[in-house]
Amino acid sequence: MTPKYTGIIPPMITPLMERDTLDCEGLERLIERMIDGGVAGIFALGTTGEAPSLSYRLRREVIEETCRIVDGRIPVLVGITDTSLVESAHLARHAADSGVEAVVTSAPFYFPAGQPELREYIEQLLPELPLPLMLYNMPPLIKTSFSGDLVTWAMEQDSIIGLKDSSGDLVYFRKMQRLAEERRPDWSLLVGPEELLAETVLLGGHGGVNGGANLHPRLYVDLYEAAAAGDIEKSRELSCQVLALSQSLYTVGQHGSAIIKGIKCALSILGLCDDFMAAPFHRFHESERRLIRDHLDTLKIPA
Amino acid sequence: MTPKYTGIIPPMITPLMERDTLDCEGLERLIERMIDGGVAGIFALGTTGEAPSLSYRLRREVIEETCRIVDGRIPVLVGITDTSLVESAHLARHAADSGVEAVVTSAPFYFPAGQPELREYIEQLLPELPLPLMLYNMPPLIKTSFSGDLVTWAMEQDSIIGLKDSSGDLVYFRKMQRLAEERRPDWSLLVGPEELLAETVLLGGHGGVNGGANLHPRLYVDLYEAAAAGDIEKSRELSCQVLALSQSLYTVGQHGSAIIKGIKCALSILGLCDDFMAAPFHRFHESERRLIRDHLDTLKIPA
Amino acid sequence: MTPKYTGIIPPMITPLMERDTLDCEGLERLIERMIDGGVAGIFALGTTGEAPSLSYRLRREVIEETCRIVDGRIPVLVGITDTSLVESAHLARHAADSGVEAVVTSAPFYFPAGQPELREYIEQLLPELPLPLMLYNMPPLIKTSFSGDLVTWAMEQDSIIGLKDSSGDLVYFRKMQRLAEERRPDWSLLVGPEELLAETVLLGGHGGVNGGANLHPRLYVDLYEAAAAGDIEKSRELSCQVLALSQSLYTVGQHGSAIIKGIKCALSILGLCDDFMAAPFHRFHESERRLIRDHLDTLKIPA
Amino acid sequence: MTPKYTGIIPPMITPLMERDTLDCEGLERLIERMIDGGVAGIFALGTTGEAPSLSYRLRREVIEETCRIVDGRIPVLVGITDTSLVESAHLARHAADSGVEAVVTSAPFYFPAGQPELREYIEQLLPELPLPLMLYNMPPLIKTSFSGDLVTWAMEQDSIIGLKDSSGDLVYFRKMQRLAEERRPDWSLLVGPEELLAETVLLGGHGGVNGGANLHPRLYVDLYEAAAAGDIEKSRELSCQVLALSQSLYTVGQHGSAIIKGIKCALSILGLCDDFMAAPFHRFHESERRLIRDHLDTLKIPA
Repeated sequence: MTPKYTGIIPPMITPLMERDTLDCEGLERLIERMIDGGVAGIFALGTTGEAPSLSYRLRREVIEETCRIVDGRIPVLVGITDTSLVESAHLARHAADSGVEAVVTSAPFYFPAGQPELREYIEQLLPELPLPLMLYNMPPLIKTSFSGDLVTWAMEQDSIIGLKDSSGDLVYFRKMQRLAEERRPDWSLLVGPEELLAETVLLGGHGGVNGGANLHPRLYVDLYEAAAAGDIEKSRELSCQVLALSQSLYTVGQHGSAIIKGIKCALSILGLCDDFMAAPFHRFHESERRLIRDHLDTLKIPA
Repeated sequence: MTPKYTGIIPPMITPLMERDTLDCEGLERLIERMIDGGVAGIFALGTTGEAPSLSYRLRREVIEETCRIVDGRIPVLVGITDTSLVESAHLARHAADSGVEAVVTSAPFYFPAGQPELREYIEQLLPELPLPLMLYNMPPLIKTSFSGDLVTWAMEQDSIIGLKDSSGDLVYFRKMQRLAEERRPDWSLLVGPEELLAETVLLGGHGGVNGGANLHPRLYVDLYEAAAAGDIEKSRELSCQVLALSQSLYTVGQHGSAIIKGIKCALSILGLCDDFMAAPFHRFHESERRLIRDHLDTLKIPA
Repeated sequence: MTPKYTGIIPPMITPLMERDTLDCEGLERLIERMIDGGVAGIFALGTTGEAPSLSYRLRREVIEETCRIVDGRIPVLVGITDTSLVESAHLARHAADSGVEAVVTSAPFYFPAGQPELREYIEQLLPELPLPLMLYNMPPLIKTSFSGDLVTWAMEQDSIIGLKDSSGDLVYFRKMQRLAEERRPDWSLLVGPEELLAETVLLGGHGGVNGGANLHPRLYVDLYEAAAAGDIEKSRELSCQVLALSQSLYTVGQHGSAIIKGIKCALSILGLCDDFMAAPFHRFHESERRLIRDHLDTLKIPA
Repeated sequence: MTPKYTGIIPPMITPLMERDTLDCEGLERLIERMIDGGVAGIFALGTTGEAPSLSYRLRREVIEETCRIVDGRIPVLVGITDTSLVESAHLARHAADSGVEAVVTSAPFYFPAGQPELREYIEQLLPELPLPLMLYNMPPLIKTSFSGDLVTWAMEQDSIIGLKDSSGDLVYFRKMQRLAEERRPDWSLLVGPEELLAETVLLGGHGGVNGGANLHPRLYVDLYEAAAAGDIEKSRELSCQVLALSQSLYTVGQHGSAIIKGIKCALSILGLCDDFMAAPFHRFHESERRLIRDHLDTLKIPA
């Protein structure tokens, strides 16, 4: 009874050529780089993947192409978070048909559901899903958090297999970890903010869904492995490198979009894929691109 | 140069029979009641219409059926707010083909767009829209508000024709009104919260998009007319009736869904339509339904 | 049984010469101007009076000097909001000894008290107060709001005489007004944000505690009287003047301090008092002062 | 050049007998227990000490009595956070006269100061302080956080010697740590939330200001020492004990006051001091006290 998903599962950005057009070659280069870097899986259509900004047609294409390229070498997970349960279920069925291994959902994000309503929602969703479900706690963008009571209930559902926590609230993470140790030792507890990968894994977390792993998968995999092995010195050192990356590349933009814009711009400079962004966002202007280039030089991320 | 939309334009609830099934007969009774009550238009697929919770197929059906039933007697407006610009544009085209008169959008609501990003978003959206656009300010549920500068810019776009403000912040409303008086006397400024209909119209607002008008259209139309005519005494009296309605029917539920649940439950008791709700919500339980029934008796809303 | 406090009761700024030194001559000019302008009372040591930033010694001096200058011509009210009940009670006793007519308090503002805790707090405070108490709802700066249930309870306490609401939430204001009409017709319901003075008074509110009345008392008194008399046209016109004042003078600063800084700077330009501010704030720099001067010219506020 | 303050410095609760009366014997027992438990210092008059709720007279008494009892055996630090700079400076002088070693301040907490205003505030405060200053980042209760730029500036001031971070945001903590390593290796970086003590110390933090150390100082000191020594296994185990304590004792209350109420109630059951609380709070009722007693039995905290 050990967690199925451990290690680094990057929340893959979605390479675009224009508004509704996937950059398929970029996607291929990106995926190959992540697999070469040792990642344990790929999480497509999450926040970093700009999923809510994409048309449903494009989301289906991302699923198909990702599965085609990965070709079973590592697990593919797919985000189905939506405001409409019916659309979530459609996407989950398409994912299952395409070879995806698990789906991931947070709460519906337009109406702020109360905890009993959120539980009823998950209860209604589960029978519609042909795949195991991982919960995704994302309070900055989703108005509802999964409470301790709700997670306790979720642990009683066989088809729910873990929690990705992007709250940045390690007290919450620790509480969920304590629950899982008592009730579901097979649950995977993955952390979102990459700055907290070392801390969580050193104390028993199972891995990270970290945006920066799109860019420099090896660094995050090495950090995970150091922390999982209890090597504090190396964890500290690599964690400082991650911090240096996030503090430089993710702070060029002014708005909430700064992280995704920074990652896409850096990937484009490294020659991996286009940096086109889905509305409401745009790629960085030349002045910001120059800053990203300078940061990349300092960070020495391998091309 | 006078505002095109004045008076009461109810944000229509979406009568459902089950998860993905429209209650067409209920829809017909509901629309006829509102037209009989003297409303100036119908706003379908807004927040009160649970639009984000509906499948796109169902949203298209709502548009078609509403236009078919209304049959040109009053204008139909349709909400196209979405996280994906591509899906917003699809819906707008469907609305135009079905006979809708204008579309309504707030900001995309997953990512919190900065003001420059929001402006770019509207700039990108406008050429995709075959219909005039009304902006919808909804900070409680949408993470981004339309700032004064953005609205000033919007007033320079011919195809943007007004603003519905559901912020509940009358200082904001007054500022926007002052801008419109100077720059776009043809803009419609409509208020969301029904408790503020009297105040805004007495001081020059153009009407309301008030949920309670699904239930008792005549009350809201009378209040609008009294306020527009400067009849303070009658405005006060009718406004107290509106307040009594909102404080009783909208406070039975515990969560953010209390308003929509209250309206749907009351409509169902009045025999107008089913009170099925789209996930993540459920209709009231019997105990709550009994409370709504008691309140309806006290309020003496005509069946 | 009519409300005791009606009309305009300006939240008086505290004229300072330096960190812990009152500008007594400025205070005298300011008070005389407000009395000449027809105000119905003076509210010292509120938010606009920077009360929490002043030493207790200085707060006592403000109380004494204000009462000395006013000399019984109009009522003086004094804010005793504090994080420490003991200090609130000290200040209230000093106020009573100096000739103050009523004290005003919001919730303690460091710890976020729950509603039952807040009720217990007021219960403990009341027997310590030698003067009637007005409640002050101020959610932007105080972490706790007075709920409808708490206000209902407060209406049963004889020594609580009204509510000043600075929430900017007119739905809340209307609900409290409805409660007062049913339970305490002698309660005074005063509105904080000056942009909402016309709306609230037209629909039955009793007046305003508006910062701008430090600067141009006559304008606010005229607006109050027009609205109280049901003169919609004049209310609209004067309300637009108030809006023009607030949108120009209060938007020069960048931070939460912009309103108080704007008022103090304008008063200093008009020759009424010094614009020194208590820490953590500073007076405007010369460039901002120039903007305020330009706005004053446009607004034609009498010197 | 090593940090002066390392290890556990409990934020001492203030034992009270009634509203304005210190429980001096309780204070003595409490302090002796903490010193016996191996704490590295005592932090009086912080949030856990209910400082903002106490009269200034009582705050001075707490300072004097604490210094008298401690008698130089360990350093005493004192919180001077206030809304009034003048009162903060008064308290700091009293602290210096009483033998305190350093003072601690967060931002003034009534007005939300902008970052430039906050920097000016600290600049004005520093020359008034006869003791070294530690910054206290406390965004849940203080409206302003110390930004990275402000902390960078603070690191250039010799008399500022460290940062206590109670934000619970480990990404922030890590960034500040990175700054300190580069610029001020003598700064102390202490964490507030006890659930994060293991994580921060394992990765280079210097200790904790943890409320639970009032109750079970030895547990927190042992955890600090295990983490500082890089003993991951023991850190995990003791950290689980801390989590069990916080999840049981701090969750009996319903409101923001639950933590302090829980600690005081537990101390009272252990016979250490009275559990009287300053307004706006009250001690637990008998039913809640019984729950705390049960939790104490389970936790096996030594009396």
